[in-house]
Amino acid sequence: MKKPEHREATKHIGTHIISDMWGCDFDDSAEKLTTFLINAAHASNSRILDISSHQFEPSGSTALLLLAESHISAHSWPEYDYIAIDIFTCGKNMQPELAIDYLEKALKPKRIETKKIVRGYDGKNNK
Amino acid sequence: MKKPEHREATKHIGTHIISDMWGCDFDDSAEKLTTFLINAAHASNSRILDISSHQFEPSGSTALLLLAESHISAHSWPEYDYIAIDIFTCGKNMQPELAIDYLEKALKPKRIETKKIVRGYDGKNNK
Repeated sequence: MKKPEHREATKHIGTHIISDMWGCDFDDSAEKLTTFLINAAHASNSRILDISSHQFEPSGSTALLLLAESHISAHSWPEYDYIAIDIFTCGKNMQPELAIDYLEKALKPKRIETKKIVRGYDGKNNK
Repeated sequence: MKKPEHREATKHIGTHIISDMWGCDFDDSAEKLTTFLINAAHASNSRILDISSHQFEPSGSTALLLLAESHISAHSWPEYDYIAIDIFTCGKNMQPELAIDYLEKALKPKRIETKKIVRGYDGKNNK
């Protein structure tokens, strides 16, 4: 993904990348999902403050990272061959695109739908 | 917010409500933000599996709840008079709208922008 333009980055508080991935190379381990998110946080130079994860039975896993720059989350549903990723970062120097680039390479989805949402854009206060 | 239609709920895996709130009645306490999210989870009949929070210095707070039904997050930026809320739930019986309704009443934002995103909609697999 391309880097956000500086002009865009100065007008909002956070950048939120939402990615839906199907057909990943992933065996539904909360431990491995957490490791992938830690690596993704490092790829985008985020600072990890807390880590939370859960292995569901009979299947499914969740990992959440609390970052100095907001959060990263992932939820897997093996029964749908689907993983939902969210990368929410604040700060104009952050590059959440680097985190999603890493996760694409690590999880190798057969199909991916990614969108970027500007968070906290307020024409009145932030222009 | 209106309840999602049943027909819509059967075609995707998760419902993600994104809410940007300005001018909230909130004194930037991570402890209070966590309490608000716990109450919001209860309002939507979600099951909380883990809680993570952080108080930033000189200002700002984050709370993350890992749910049996995915996650709820909140980040506050007092310097922008802004709070970012995410409520991500899976399962057709979930009503994340009840969580956001509670948070609107609790945080009393002067301005709010809320959008609902369907997660994991795959025309091939889930129709």
